[in-house]
Amino acid sequence: MINPQTDAVWMSRAIALAEKGRLTTTPNPNVGCVLVKDNQLIGEGYHIKAGTAHAEVHALANAGAEARGATAYVTLEPCSHFGRTPPCAEALIKAGVARVVCAGLDPNPQVAGKGVEMLRQAGIDVTVGVLAEQAKLLNLGFLKRMRTGRPYVTVKMAASLDGATAMKSGESQWITGPQAREDVQQGRAISCAVVTGVGTVLADDPSLNVRLPECSRQPVRIILDTHASTPASATIVQNPGETFVIHSDQAAPERLAALKQAGFRCVSLPVSGGQIDLSAFLAWAGEQQFNQLWVEAGATLAGALLTQGLADEVILYQALMMMGSQTRPLLSTTFTELKDSIAFDCLDFGMIGADTRWRLKPRNYGETE
Amino acid sequence: MINPQTDAVWMSRAIALAEKGRLTTTPNPNVGCVLVKDNQLIGEGYHIKAGTAHAEVHALANAGAEARGATAYVTLEPCSHFGRTPPCAEALIKAGVARVVCAGLDPNPQVAGKGVEMLRQAGIDVTVGVLAEQAKLLNLGFLKRMRTGRPYVTVKMAASLDGATAMKSGESQWITGPQAREDVQQGRAISCAVVTGVGTVLADDPSLNVRLPECSRQPVRIILDTHASTPASATIVQNPGETFVIHSDQAAPERLAALKQAGFRCVSLPVSGGQIDLSAFLAWAGEQQFNQLWVEAGATLAGALLTQGLADEVILYQALMMMGSQTRPLLSTTFTELKDSIAFDCLDFGMIGADTRWRLKPRNYGETE
Repeated sequence: MINPQTDAVWMSRAIALAEKGRLTTTPNPNVGCVLVKDNQLIGEGYHIKAGTAHAEVHALANAGAEARGATAYVTLEPCSHFGRTPPCAEALIKAGVARVVCAGLDPNPQVAGKGVEMLRQAGIDVTVGVLAEQAKLLNLGFLKRMRTGRPYVTVKMAASLDGATAMKSGESQWITGPQAREDVQQGRAISCAVVTGVGTVLADDPSLNVRLPECSRQPVRIILDTHASTPASATIVQNPGETFVIHSDQAAPERLAALKQAGFRCVSLPVSGGQIDLSAFLAWAGEQQFNQLWVEAGATLAGALLTQGLADEVILYQALMMMGSQTRPLLSTTFTELKDSIAFDCLDFGMIGADTRWRLKPRNYGETE
Repeated sequence: MINPQTDAVWMSRAIALAEKGRLTTTPNPNVGCVLVKDNQLIGEGYHIKAGTAHAEVHALANAGAEARGATAYVTLEPCSHFGRTPPCAEALIKAGVARVVCAGLDPNPQVAGKGVEMLRQAGIDVTVGVLAEQAKLLNLGFLKRMRTGRPYVTVKMAASLDGATAMKSGESQWITGPQAREDVQQGRAISCAVVTGVGTVLADDPSLNVRLPECSRQPVRIILDTHASTPASATIVQNPGETFVIHSDQAAPERLAALKQAGFRCVSLPVSGGQIDLSAFLAWAGEQQFNQLWVEAGATLAGALLTQGLADEVILYQALMMMGSQTRPLLSTTFTELKDSIAFDCLDFGMIGADTRWRLKPRNYGETE
């Protein structure tokens, strides 16, 4: 009865469903579920938004009484706890499902194998590990946060082939083309928060919002700003969604008052070497239930994240041009020996419009378990 | 009788033959020839070395009396003049060949259509233009030199993703891996001369020779060295093959005497802005019958060639690492506006070992006709 190839085909469909929630489920994971009986699809669904029904509940509602005796394919272990909704494992048991196939276990300490255990105790046949690696890619941020308490950090960069991000004057419009800039919008849209440094705010006054019609949600904006120097009139706070200023406890109270007045949320965090301590910042971001951070910053913050081994991934757009030596560098760093360079593994490479797009994993990346 | 597809198949074989001469024919072009009768191969050959028989002569000798009535496929127009060997057009006529197919005309002013004319006047059916673009790639250097009097200039670069070629200390061993360095050997081997600047000689004391068992010839080495500051003891002159020092007429006579004593050939050329005038240098290199220059230099010479629009091609090896800001740049340039950046078209891209290899054509490249 059990055919691993058939299992993979149905799980693949469940993964495709899960992806439909990628712009909306935060802080919850993306999950898809497919119900199958006699090799026929009888119901399917995916998680759309935190606080609303999980994927399994949608699929069971879709199947109705047909669910009895069916196999449920779920991209993540069904939950076993009462959160904002009742446990899905219980719903599957009540519906009389005969078998459950999940891609992987849920590392959420409130689940972590308890969902599978609950199903097995109810006499349901459970298989774990079908298309496990593909399913993990749905939830890099959620899975990392559940394991480590910290978000998954993606550092976005745009540069010329000779590593310049701007001329010395600051001129940088445009190095990359419209397709790469559209892709940046996608990167922001799937993230929980967009992070920048006060230097970028002062130099460019960016909005850092998402301008995609299909994205109904605005990621939180976060400015690392030790001295709370962000202008109260900055564009970044003027769009829908929250904007945080992360400052030290030495920031001037009148600056903080002005920022709060303008709508910013101000958070004091420890300082290390004159800058906001980045480990403390990531721990705070995890507490905020941010799964995925998208960093669009200057050479200083990008350099600090990469040299401290705190970036999970770099998205590098490279324009097929050389800007020469009267330019600003991609990373500002202090190390002076080649052995301290940041080496990468290539996760993906392609052309996007006339530019290249690299997905790179830093080799010095030290995930805190 | 004439089938364009069949013509392309045989020309493709002639091109593959021509490629066998790529390390040895300089200053002559790479040429291959295939003789076909009743759709059967009856003879083939390629040009091996300047001063020895051309491709057509090898193929005719290979076919013997069978050549009468055959079709000859040649990757370049048969020559019409007495050079170091008699004209090939005449040899084809004498052998009684019925038809000649050539990929393209020979821009050499001594040929330039006269070969085809000679064949047609002898009653031979001539087709020109089969696989013309592929055949041009055999002889980028020769074709450019015949058209413009200057060699084809390839600038080789190796850098990190953030455009660094060395740490500030000069440390650069190794940014790219062994496969990329082996590929550099191939680039040198197919070139007529390897060009560098005195800065590289003083900093690295390179040999710039070819260390490939299959390469019996050493490309000429050329140092651009306004003040003739190259040490007489430099490694570059100690391997087989000639080494030129290109200097200004202000260079100290005793320096020149010391260099000549050590085996260097010294050439005085005009100066522009305190450096050897690069246009004058390329004109000189053309006069020396150098078809192809391979430039392995520092940021100054590379920057000058690219900003002056004198580079035909860049080969960029990029290691998947970032070296940060305490580093040396890929290009040393003075322009300060983004519009003056050097934009490229991608001719080819691939991975070579763990590094990337770009073949790039500068868009500002201004070929002098």
